[in-house]
Amino acid sequence: MIHSMMSQVTLGIIQELLSLGHGSVLNEEGEVEMDAIIMDGKDLTSGAVSAVKCIANPIKLARLVMEKTNHLLLTSQGASLFAKAQGISEVPGEQLITERSRERWRKNLKPGSNPVAYQLGLGTVGAVAIDRQGNVACATSTGGMTNKMVGRVGDTACIGSGGYANNSVGAVSTTGHGESIMKVILARLILHYMENGMSTEEAADAGLNYMKTQVDGSGGVIVVNSAGEWTAKFSTKQMSWAAIKDDQLHCGIHTGENEIVSVAASPQ
Amino acid sequence: MIHSMMSQVTLGIIQELLSLGHGSVLNEEGEVEMDAIIMDGKDLTSGAVSAVKCIANPIKLARLVMEKTNHLLLTSQGASLFAKAQGISEVPGEQLITERSRERWRKNLKPGSNPVAYQLGLGTVGAVAIDRQGNVACATSTGGMTNKMVGRVGDTACIGSGGYANNSVGAVSTTGHGESIMKVILARLILHYMENGMSTEEAADAGLNYMKTQVDGSGGVIVVNSAGEWTAKFSTKQMSWAAIKDDQLHCGIHTGENEIVSVAASPQ
Repeated sequence: MIHSMMSQVTLGIIQELLSLGHGSVLNEEGEVEMDAIIMDGKDLTSGAVSAVKCIANPIKLARLVMEKTNHLLLTSQGASLFAKAQGISEVPGEQLITERSRERWRKNLKPGSNPVAYQLGLGTVGAVAIDRQGNVACATSTGGMTNKMVGRVGDTACIGSGGYANNSVGAVSTTGHGESIMKVILARLILHYMENGMSTEEAADAGLNYMKTQVDGSGGVIVVNSAGEWTAKFSTKQMSWAAIKDDQLHCGIHTGENEIVSVAASPQ
Repeated sequence: MIHSMMSQVTLGIIQELLSLGHGSVLNEEGEVEMDAIIMDGKDLTSGAVSAVKCIANPIKLARLVMEKTNHLLLTSQGASLFAKAQGISEVPGEQLITERSRERWRKNLKPGSNPVAYQLGLGTVGAVAIDRQGNVACATSTGGMTNKMVGRVGDTACIGSGGYANNSVGAVSTTGHGESIMKVILARLILHYMENGMSTEEAADAGLNYMKTQVDGSGGVIVVNSAGEWTAKFSTKQMSWAAIKDDQLHCGIHTGENEIVSVAASPQ
């Protein structure tokens, strides 16, 4: 949740915040395959990429899909061809892998492992923002579910699931068990609740509760409405989040936490 | 809209109806790349594939994703690997191309052509169904937008956009300008309207109208609710549709058409 001066700046800040291919979880073949989405609430334009390899900043690529094509979603090799045409260099896949992600991948190769349990709350970064003109935006980027099948696309690349933004209501970015989020199209669902009169907090709780009762799925969401009210909610054990509003930084990891730090610039 | 005895049969009939890779529109490289989705309203399970090449029946593959994996969406080469593992043979891409689709592709290569105008109402097949137990399902399959970029994924593979099914409300399958459908997540939107008390017809009209006013997009939808009431609506010039209910076949192409033919079996 970031205040800024205009929609382009909002999108730019979001993009920089989420420049995170490095450290993503690995698929069953031990490779990084990422999904990402960005959406501008002003006109419902959006860009996304799915199952992209060797891309250091998938959000940047998603934004180029939004701004430079007539499409909303490019996948796999097609997205790579587009990246090359836009002058984005590929990085060797190995550079995106950390020892931590490789260790988790190895553990999940063992019989009886439970990749879903290892996955929750890990590996996805998201942001929502509103500027002074009331323009909202969202973005989400992820390596998906650890030890996923090659070519598995999760909620992040699916508009309405991994994120949604509409100036008349607000913006949502989601994380958690991707398949559950997709089944209930969580981001759009929360905005529907807000359209029907709920606060950001009520809508986030109602959405996460619906996902739990309908498909037994857990996740987390960050939400902002068109009045600038925001919330960070999760049904997982924890979710790292931070928010900036009116020169105050809020942050937390466990349920109920809300540390507040002033980030106002010192008067000159 | 098909009456049948049980959910599995419903899904099976839908799958057979939509076995249609042949004749799809071509991407900018002159290849068939298909998206497909199937969804079971009983438990919100779903399967989809995006940007698959050389697959004669993408809906069948989407159903295997639903039934044989923990995932909802497989893309591109990953989907091909899965198809091979499931014993589905690839067909030479050339076999899926018709002279008509190649002719349209050639026309769209010319400067000043408008692939979107050529596209509307073409190349997508969809179905919704309800059985005697009230189980609803939907499926959609498409070659996408003619002369699309390699790797472009449209509404069809995105849950909630190309289709959605929930026994407590109904099911929707969509066609039209994919990017517009995605921006408003049309299938889920129509079901939200139905949850809020609208009839299938009112909800379909409201959804198509929202898409027109918000993002200037046209499309068509088939809708069934949990009481078995159905509608086929479109904001494009035409849409070929058919419905079977109570031994009567309804069908039409242009606005307002509804031919009715009895399909009751003769008494033995």
